This record gives sequence, structure tokens and C-alpha cells, in this order.
Amino acid sequence: MKERRIKIAGMGRALAGERLEFDGQTRYRLRADETLLDLEERAAGQALEAASIKIQDVDCIVCATATPLQAIPCNAALLHERMAKGLETPAMDINTTCTSFITALDVMACMVEAGRYERVLIVSGDMASAALNPNQKESFELFSDAAAACVLLRSGEGEGSAVLYSSQRTWSEGAHDTEIRGGCGLMTAFCMNGENREDYYFDMKGKKILKLCAKKLPPFIDACLKEAEIDRSEIRLVIPHQASRALGVIMPRLGFPKGTYFDRVERYGNMVSASVPYALSEAINEELIRRGELVLLIGTAAGLTSNFLLLRY
Amino acid sequence: MKERRIKIAGMGRALAGERLEFDGQTRYRLRADETLLDLEERAAGQALEAASIKIQDVDCIVCATATPLQAIPCNAALLHERMAKGLETPAMDINTTCTSFITALDVMACMVEAGRYERVLIVSGDMASAALNPNQKESFELFSDAAAACVLLRSGEGEGSAVLYSSQRTWSEGAHDTEIRGGCGLMTAFCMNGENREDYYFDMKGKKILKLCAKKLPPFIDACLKEAEIDRSEIRLVIPHQASRALGVIMPRLGFPKGTYFDRVERYGNMVSASVPYALSEAINEELIRRGELVLLIGTAAGLTSNFLLLRY
Repeated sequence: MKERRIKIAGMGRALAGERLEFDGQTRYRLRADETLLDLEERAAGQALEAASIKIQDVDCIVCATATPLQAIPCNAALLHERMAKGLETPAMDINTTCTSFITALDVMACMVEAGRYERVLIVSGDMASAALNPNQKESFELFSDAAAACVLLRSGEGEGSAVLYSSQRTWSEGAHDTEIRGGCGLMTAFCMNGENREDYYFDMKGKKILKLCAKKLPPFIDACLKEAEIDRSEIRLVIPHQASRALGVIMPRLGFPKGTYFDRVERYGNMVSASVPYALSEAINEELIRRGELVLLIGTAAGLTSNFLLLRY
Repeated sequence: MKERRIKIAGMGRALAGERLEFDGQTRYRLRADETLLDLEERAAGQALEAASIKIQDVDCIVCATATPLQAIPCNAALLHERMAKGLETPAMDINTTCTSFITALDVMACMVEAGRYERVLIVSGDMASAALNPNQKESFELFSDAAAACVLLRSGEGEGSAVLYSSQRTWSEGAHDTEIRGGCGLMTAFCMNGENREDYYFDMKGKKILKLCAKKLPPFIDACLKEAEIDRSEIRLVIPHQASRALGVIMPRLGFPKGTYFDRVERYGNMVSASVPYALSEAINEELIRRGELVLLIGTAAGLTSNFLLLRY
């Protein structure tokens, strides 16, 4: 695969305002006076500032989010209204659920490489709290509401920043292991009744997903590393999707022992599409990753989808 | 802009099974025993057959749809389950509402150009009927449920098929002129009550949209043609989004008189994301477009977004 010469020029992140504790784990949820758009706007503003560019300089706004704010229009149009009203910047959504940010980075690196765009703002974020089922303890205590954003530029002459390799796989035998069945086209809000109310909540079959991941992920990761011609030891830091507390069990099985990957599940839980860019932004801030070093973004998403993207930061 | 050497190798389309007439206009709606996934699967199957490839040969499945079937997972994972269960083909959604197909073609042409994918299945389709408001006559009588699909390949040596130029603009001052406010994150199904029930229906401010389009579209189209260095007379056929019966008024104002563009509003109405690929598929079938000829795909979408994509078929 030809490397795609892009650079993460700036990142930003924002947490919801209500802080909760579940059994030593901290989670954040939207307060009644804030919406996800507030968080997305804050994260995007920080990313622009860090990249030293203005929203007027951005030539594409991408919302890489798992869940819709409204069925129509797309999330990026609503964020555009907050940040870019009066401008003509194109806005689009890219969605592979929890790994949407990795997919968007993969896609937009190709668009930059093809000369279609040069300065892209990618914003991720979800409000899991809108659909958490209080009767499903495992998922109810897992998620946080947050947003994170990234400014992507074409790499300049002499800069080494690039997407070196990327891959995605979807195994739809897991399509119903993580889902919200109700609220949209297949089961509209009008269909809700006393019997099917639970269908409108987020529903996660944790053990089934773990089993499918245990089967599918190791050969996927191995195949990617082989095709990318990269040894695990060359990777400075792995940024996995912060899927659950099982991270500490799964990562070593993928050949990444403690210390080689970033784990903030205790501090934030699963932030859906914001997890990967939020973690990446923190790792950059804490100087755990420096320019020129290799970073691996990986994650699993409802689908079941998994993404692998190797970046020279 | 560098041309991106891709080829539409096959297309397919499917209409919902219930046929209605409104004032001389024919519309199609899903029967109780069918879902949008049935239509998408049919359209995609035709596209694969027309391209003489199998689903096993596809290296990416894209749902370019306006509305979610479920909030989680993405539409492409649910279509994957229908068509590709047991395979590992990556699946993703790309969404700019009604112009999602044009955006997906634009995006995936870049991914093919960058060497990331080679054989892409793009499927569009929406079930407007799930959210039409019987009290809003204009929109209630406008939409049809349908799906359309396309197989995109890298152009072979000596083939001229390519995306020659593409552009998108979003003017978010129109973000709330076409929307479904309720059902998703900002106003969940749980919030529905006797007072806000109308918010869960599709809501279209027809006159406001027309006014914004009349202001924004002519300079956009002119700028695109100029930048693409193409004269209107070189275009074999314009395939516009079949937005409404106003097509016959708007197109001449954009410099495309009757006979230069494809108009099937009377026959099908607005099929949301399926409109453009459905019309393109019909035009190819009727030999109104031949290999090597220039086709212009244009459209407006909730956002307000507009897309322009010039294709050498």
C-alpha cells in the first residue's frame, strides 16, 4: 500500500459536564443544559487552534460519529451550523460506529492524497447516555459522553507524517450483538409501546462480542502487521478503542502487553466514536507520541467491524 | 483537479411494492411485508450481476443513504448481514442526505485512485414513508421508497472512464429547512409526547428551500463548470436529484433546458438518496448515456448541501 502523506496538525477534546462514579470507574454524561453539539464545537475549536488555522481555512468538515443527532440532516450539517454558518464548506458523515474516526482518517487521507481536499476537520462524538438502559448494568456503567476532533493537512515537503497502512474488516455475524433496534427507519418512534420499550435502548451482548473478537482479531492484526511489514516493536504506542474493562485482557492476546498501549477505561470508559481520537489527543498532549514516531490506531465497532491504521505521526 | 480513473461497471435498482397515485403523479411505498433492506439487496444483486462480479470480489460495501435503519450499527453492517455474512468485506456509511450517492462516488473514486480499494459496491436507498407526515400534503405526496446500487471499479488500461471533477458545498443556514427533529440523539423516542409528536415526522419547508437554492445554486454550478473547464454543450446528459416537481423550473435557470436533463419526478417522485443512482441506472439502461460520454450528477440535499460530479462514463 502506498503511503498517504497527511499530517495530524492539531487535536481537541471535550467531556460532558456531569461526573459519575461506578465502582471506582469514572464516567461523564451530558448535563441537562448541554448537548453533544456543544462538546463537538469545543473539541473542534481546540483542534483548529492547535493547528493554527481558522474554520474558514478548512475545506471539508467530517462528522465521524456512530449515532445520528437527527435522522435528517446529517450530523456534519448540524455541526456546520454551529461552526461554519455563512461559509460554504462541504459537510459529510462517515460512520462505522465506534471506529468511525479511524475510518474517516483512512478515507480522508485518500481524498487528500488524490488532491480532492487539503485541510480537513474530523469531529467524533456520541451521546451514549441518550439510549443507555438502566436495567443493563454492564453497558449502563460503561459509557461516557464526549467529543474529540482533529485537523488533517497534506504533509509538507520534507515532513514524514503519513498514513502508512490501513485495513478494515466487517464480520456481520455480530451485527446484532451491539445495537439500538428502535428509533429509526426499521422501528420508528411511532411504534414504541409498552411491550417493546427496551428495543429503543442500547443493547450490548458483552460475552458474545468478546467471543467473536477473540476469534477474529488475532488473525486480523497479524495479517495487517505482516502486510504493513511492521514489527510490533517498531510501534511507539498503540491507541485502541477503549471498548471496555476487558482491554487489559484482549490487548496482550493481540501481542501488545501492558505499557505498549493506551488504557484510560477506568478514567473515562467507552466514549463510542470519540474514544480513539480522545485517547490519541491525550497521548499527544502527554508527549507519549512525538513527530516521526509510529502510532497504531485499532478498534472494534458494532458491525462487528474492526479497523487498523498505522500512522507516522 | 486530477481525474480519478474509475468505472461504473454495473448498476441495479428496486422499487417498493405498493403503488400510489397523487394527482397524476406515481409514488411507491414499502408494503407491510417488505423492508428497505429487501430493496437494497435486490438493487445490489442486480448491480453485481451487471458488473459480472460476485459479492466475494467486492472489497468495500458502502451504504450511501440519508437515514439510519437503526441508530446502531451503521446501515452498511445490516446490508452486509444480508449479502455478505461470513465474509470479511469492510462496510461503512457515507451520508450527505439526498446527495449521499454523489458524495460516496466522489469519496470512493479517491480511495480507488489512492490504491486503497479496487472494487466497491455503493448502495443507496431510503424509506421516506417511515416518517412522512399525512398532514403535510406537499411532502407526503412527493416521496417514494426505493434503492439503487452501483459497482465501481478501477478503470483498466486504455479505458477512459473517470471522475473528471467534483465539488460539494454546504450552506447550513438551510440546516432546518428539511429535517426530522425527533427519534435520534437530540430528541429521543422516549421524549415523544402528545405535544411534540409532529417533530418525529419529516418536515420540509419547500418555499424556503427553493429560495435558498435559487440564490446558491447558479453561482455554484457556474463556478464548477468553469473550474472543470467544461461547457454545458459537452455534457451528454445531466442527472439531477429528483427533488420535486420544481425541477422543470430550476434546471433551465441553471442553464440546462428541457431535454438536457433526466426528469422522472412524475413517475417516481423524490427517492431521497436513491434518486440519483436510480435515474443514472435508468438512463444507462435506456442507452441515453454511452461509454466515453460525459454525464453530470448534481443535486441538493438537506443541509443545505449541493454536489456536482462530472463523470466520463
